[in-house]
Amino acid sequence: MHTATITSQEIQAKIDLKTKPLGALGSLEKLAFQIASVQDTLSPQLANPHVIVFAASHGIASEGVSAYPSEVTPQMVLNFIGGGAAINVFTRQHGISLLLVDAGVDYDFGQNEKLIDAKVNFGTKSFAKQPAMTNAQCRLCLEKGAELVRQVQEAGCNVIGFGEMGIGNTSSASAIMSRLLNIPIAECVGKGTGLDDAQLTRKVAVLADALDFHQNAANNPESVLATFGGFEIAMMCGAMLEAARLGMLVLVDGFIASVSYLCAFKMDPAIRRNAVFCHQSNEKGHRLLLQSLEADALLKLDMRLGEGTGCALAYPLMQSAVAFLNEMASFESAGVSQKTEN
Amino acid sequence: MHTATITSQEIQAKIDLKTKPLGALGSLEKLAFQIASVQDTLSPQLANPHVIVFAASHGIASEGVSAYPSEVTPQMVLNFIGGGAAINVFTRQHGISLLLVDAGVDYDFGQNEKLIDAKVNFGTKSFAKQPAMTNAQCRLCLEKGAELVRQVQEAGCNVIGFGEMGIGNTSSASAIMSRLLNIPIAECVGKGTGLDDAQLTRKVAVLADALDFHQNAANNPESVLATFGGFEIAMMCGAMLEAARLGMLVLVDGFIASVSYLCAFKMDPAIRRNAVFCHQSNEKGHRLLLQSLEADALLKLDMRLGEGTGCALAYPLMQSAVAFLNEMASFESAGVSQKTEN
Repeated sequence: MHTATITSQEIQAKIDLKTKPLGALGSLEKLAFQIASVQDTLSPQLANPHVIVFAASHGIASEGVSAYPSEVTPQMVLNFIGGGAAINVFTRQHGISLLLVDAGVDYDFGQNEKLIDAKVNFGTKSFAKQPAMTNAQCRLCLEKGAELVRQVQEAGCNVIGFGEMGIGNTSSASAIMSRLLNIPIAECVGKGTGLDDAQLTRKVAVLADALDFHQNAANNPESVLATFGGFEIAMMCGAMLEAARLGMLVLVDGFIASVSYLCAFKMDPAIRRNAVFCHQSNEKGHRLLLQSLEADALLKLDMRLGEGTGCALAYPLMQSAVAFLNEMASFESAGVSQKTEN
Repeated sequence: MHTATITSQEIQAKIDLKTKPLGALGSLEKLAFQIASVQDTLSPQLANPHVIVFAASHGIASEGVSAYPSEVTPQMVLNFIGGGAAINVFTRQHGISLLLVDAGVDYDFGQNEKLIDAKVNFGTKSFAKQPAMTNAQCRLCLEKGAELVRQVQEAGCNVIGFGEMGIGNTSSASAIMSRLLNIPIAECVGKGTGLDDAQLTRKVAVLADALDFHQNAANNPESVLATFGGFEIAMMCGAMLEAARLGMLVLVDGFIASVSYLCAFKMDPAIRRNAVFCHQSNEKGHRLLLQSLEADALLKLDMRLGEGTGCALAYPLMQSAVAFLNEMASFESAGVSQKTEN
C-alpha cells in the first residue's frame, strides 16, 4: 500500500467548511470521508461502477431448508441474462455495469456472452454429512473471484458491488456466521425468502445437526467456507479481498454478501477501510452480523432479495457524498456566516 | 376526485408476480403500490420532478434560540441562487428542477430571475409576546404556496418535494408540533443546527413561555400556524395541500417540512395518500412526529439540514420503485418457478 498524501484532518476540514451546520449531512459525511480516504484525495471520483452477481447451486437445498426449488437458481440466472430481474433494473437505472458469473450452478448454460463461466462444479455437496466443497475448490473460488476483479479494475472501475443468487445460500451463510462468530445457529437463521414457522424450525434443526457433524473441522475462514460452502459465497469473498487490495470501494449487499465479507474480514481486516455497507436486510441474522462487524448500513429498506440490489440502490448515495464534497460551496466562498460562538 | 379505475388487488398482483420472493423488495414495494394508487395506473411514471425551497426569517431568532445568526437566512438564499448549497448539488444530480421562493426573508433581494418573490413580510414577529403573523398573512402564505404548485403542475410535474431555510424555524416547528399534538415542548425540541446543552435549555424555556403566553389562542391548524409562524412553514403547508389535491406525489423532507405536513394533514387528512416521507432526521422531535403520523421514512441518514435534501436523496428510490414495477419480468414471462407449496 502506498503512503497517504492527504491527512484525515484535511478531509474533515473540507467537509466542515461546506455551507451546512457541522455534521448536518450525517451518514453522507462519513461516507465522503471514507471515499476520500480510500482514494487518498480531496476530490474523489467514482469511476466505471460495477456490480458482479455470482450464482451457484447448493447441495444443502436438498434438505428442505428453502422455500423455493433448486431449479430457480438457473432460472434466475437466465432471468438476469434476459435483463428482467431486480438487479438488472436497478443497475440500468444508475448506469452501473452488471456482470453475471456462473460460480457453480447445477445447469449447463452452454456458451453465453452475457454469462461469465467460472463454474467450479455443478453445485456443492450437501454439508449435512460432508464438506460442501474441497479445500482446492474453495481456493479456486477465491482465485477466480480475485481474477475477475482484477480485470474489472484494469478496465477503470474503482467502485464495485457484489451480489449473489443461490437457492439454499442463507443456510450456508448462517452456518458460516454461526461458526466464525460463535453465535448459536438459531440466532443466525431467518426465514430466507419466505419459510413458514415449521419450515424455519426444520432449517434450524438441519443446520444445528450439520454444525455438530462438522464440529471438529478447522475453525479458520477458508476451512469454514469450504465446509459450509457456497461457491458464490467463496468467490465473492475472494473478489472482495482483491478489490480492497486494489484500493477499490467495496459495496457490501445483504446477508449472504455480508457473510462473504465476514470471511474476507477474518482473512484480512484491512478490508474494513474499503467496505461500504449498503443495506441491512430483514433477516434476523443480518442485523446481528452487522452489529458484530460494527457496521451501519446506508439503507434499511426491509428488503431480502440479494442479487446486489442493496449495492445498486445505495450507489446514488455514494454519488451524493462525492458530489457534495466536490461541488458544495464553502462558508467563505459563499459568504455565509458561521456558527455563533458562545 | 375521479373514481379509481385500477383496484388495489390489481396493483398488488402486479407486484407479487415479479421475479422475487413475495415482499422481498420491502419498502420499495409499498412505495410502488402507493405511486400506482395515487396515479391510478399499473404503469406509473414520475414526470418533471421539482423541489421548491421556501425561505423566511423568524422574529423568534432574536430570542437566542438558534446556533446561527439570522443573517444566515438571506446568505443561504444567495448560496442557493449561486448553486452552492447541498440542495443544489443533490437536485442537479437527480435531474430535479429546483425553485427558490422568498416567503418572507428579512432582506431585499431586488429582482432576481432565480428567486420567486412571494415575500409576505420582512420576517415574522417574535412569537414570544405576540402572534408571529396575522391571520391574513397566514392565509396569504397558504394561497401563495398553492398557486406556486398549480403553476408547476401545469408545467407537467407530478412529483414534488418541499424544503425550507430559515434560522429559528426549528423553534416555530417545535411550538406548532407541541400545540397541535399536545406533546410537552421539551419532547418536541432538538438541538437544531447545533446548540449546546445550555442553549438547548434556554430554547426550551423560551418556547415553554411562549406556549404559555399563547395558551388561549385557538387550537386549529391555521391559527396555530399564524401564532407560531414561519412564513415558509405556512407556505409549504399550502403548497403540500394543493399538490395532494392535484393528485401529485408529495415528498416530505425533514422536521420542519414534517410540521408543515402535520398542519396540512390536520386541515385535510386526505393528503396522507399522496405523502412520501423521505428522511427521518436526528432531531428528537422528528422521530416522535413521524411516529405520531404513523409514517416510516425511506431514509435515515442522521441528517439535520432541511433545504429539501431528504426529498432529493430519496428520489432515486422512488424511481427504483417505479422502474421495478414497469420493467421487471414476471415469473411467467421469465419462466421462473414459484414458491413450493406445503
